[in-house]
Amino acid sequence: MHVWVPYEEFVADVEQLAPDVQVAVYTGRDGVPADVGSVDFFVAPYATTAEALGVTNRMPELRVMQLLSAGYEHALPFLPSGVALCNARGVHDASTAELAVALMLASLRRIPRFVRAQDKHSWAPGQFDALADKHVLIVGYGSIGEAIDRRLRPFETTITRVARTPRPDDDVRGVEELPTLLPQADIVVMVTPLTPQTKGMVNAEFIRRMKHGALLVNVARGAVVDTSALLVALEEERIRAALDVTDPEPLPTDHPLWDAPGLLISPHVGGNTSAFLPRARRLVREQVARFANNAPLENIVVLGTR
Amino acid sequence: MHVWVPYEEFVADVEQLAPDVQVAVYTGRDGVPADVGSVDFFVAPYATTAEALGVTNRMPELRVMQLLSAGYEHALPFLPSGVALCNARGVHDASTAELAVALMLASLRRIPRFVRAQDKHSWAPGQFDALADKHVLIVGYGSIGEAIDRRLRPFETTITRVARTPRPDDDVRGVEELPTLLPQADIVVMVTPLTPQTKGMVNAEFIRRMKHGALLVNVARGAVVDTSALLVALEEERIRAALDVTDPEPLPTDHPLWDAPGLLISPHVGGNTSAFLPRARRLVREQVARFANNAPLENIVVLGTR
Repeated sequence: MHVWVPYEEFVADVEQLAPDVQVAVYTGRDGVPADVGSVDFFVAPYATTAEALGVTNRMPELRVMQLLSAGYEHALPFLPSGVALCNARGVHDASTAELAVALMLASLRRIPRFVRAQDKHSWAPGQFDALADKHVLIVGYGSIGEAIDRRLRPFETTITRVARTPRPDDDVRGVEELPTLLPQADIVVMVTPLTPQTKGMVNAEFIRRMKHGALLVNVARGAVVDTSALLVALEEERIRAALDVTDPEPLPTDHPLWDAPGLLISPHVGGNTSAFLPRARRLVREQVARFANNAPLENIVVLGTR
Repeated sequence: MHVWVPYEEFVADVEQLAPDVQVAVYTGRDGVPADVGSVDFFVAPYATTAEALGVTNRMPELRVMQLLSAGYEHALPFLPSGVALCNARGVHDASTAELAVALMLASLRRIPRFVRAQDKHSWAPGQFDALADKHVLIVGYGSIGEAIDRRLRPFETTITRVARTPRPDDDVRGVEELPTLLPQADIVVMVTPLTPQTKGMVNAEFIRRMKHGALLVNVARGAVVDTSALLVALEEERIRAALDVTDPEPLPTDHPLWDAPGLLISPHVGGNTSAFLPRARRLVREQVARFANNAPLENIVVLGTR
């Protein structure tokens, strides 16, 4: 059994799993290990290039391509026929959910205002919002949506969950109810995948239904929000926003969003934190163990048909 | 029964509690209501002046002085003999605990850095800390400490609780264990009352025992931290800090703390948020109801002996 991993830290973990396992490190930036023709389990480098993933063309024995991201579209062109593609569902949940809550708290409690006041040596208190008592609408209720929900509960908030398909047993409402749910929310968090249905979902009509002064948080993908419509609403100070993702991204230096009032921007740092490596490591250990024991893999998103 | 309340919003609440209740609004800024000689339950204005509290000298019938703050030292000179002084324990917990978590998340997830980058139109991602996996030491485990704990738990943190008196049943350690606990913590939150024992508690020795790069959060009182010792540690980039309270306070324009590296300052906004009024209202309603029904009051901190 030949396994490739993208980080040195994973080598010892994987070596312990089976007596006959061979582990090599492939970062996508350095050389291609000598056993490329024998690799059966390939943990692809995170946030890498198309060239780096193209190495699968030289892996006739490949059985599993394990990603460290939740998104997998970028890997499809490099997935050989019959190979199982597994994503990293769950690995980024803690970090991304945490950022969603951080953006809410920072915006409501006016951290950006205090940072700017600090730079001017100005002590300027006042009465501002709290997260307590707020009604939060989570749009997109997959594993990150659940992780946000779990973190918000002790803050004395009211939470409404929305997903594409209603799941009454989990108290999850369907997207078709959004027009009646939006006017009730103080905070709307977008955490949907980017699909033809969610592209531009937060448009002028969506924003018009939001409460005056409500906060929009986007930790999904930039294109889920119609940037022009958001910009108009921000300029008119109808809503506030906190975005970890933008459209376009990265945001060009001369983009008007930078100076929009009531907006906090973080530069797509939802998933890439100190929480990533321990969780990625745990996933790889478990997946390789399953593979070594002929147990069913988790997180299979596609079986290659190329 | 004559009750004075500091906000119009409280009047209807209190009027409903008993058929014979008379309610007047006394803000401490406007006039003194005509029934001052008959007041038996006085809800003192929040964050008010000594002059405003001096009105108790004109209340021969006074039985209860209810504060809307947790601290009560400022009211003692105005507490007539035999009058019960009640504080607002619990009313500020949600707001203050929330700010403590907001300061942690903002500092770790580098919100101040992103605000400054936004002002420069600069998209500058990177890998930073998460709160997940961090070991948090809560120093001072009263009702706000508990409220912080409750909010932190779903963030996948490890929490150690410290109070003056160890309470093994609640897993609360005694302050005498701090020298061995400090080196293990990634985040140290101060939420003790200010007493002769806690004044200057975070001194050079305390900071020296903290982990390199750890975060100090102060939502207690400014004087719990020795400002000079903190300043040295910040300048040397040994620790990071987030302070809602400072010593001196307000921080003078020319104070070196403003520009200390790795420091986030909020201007003592822990308790004064949108969460305050609903909780204060609930407390006043409950306390007046107890008084009207001859039930024991909550939160009696002192019985006047003047």
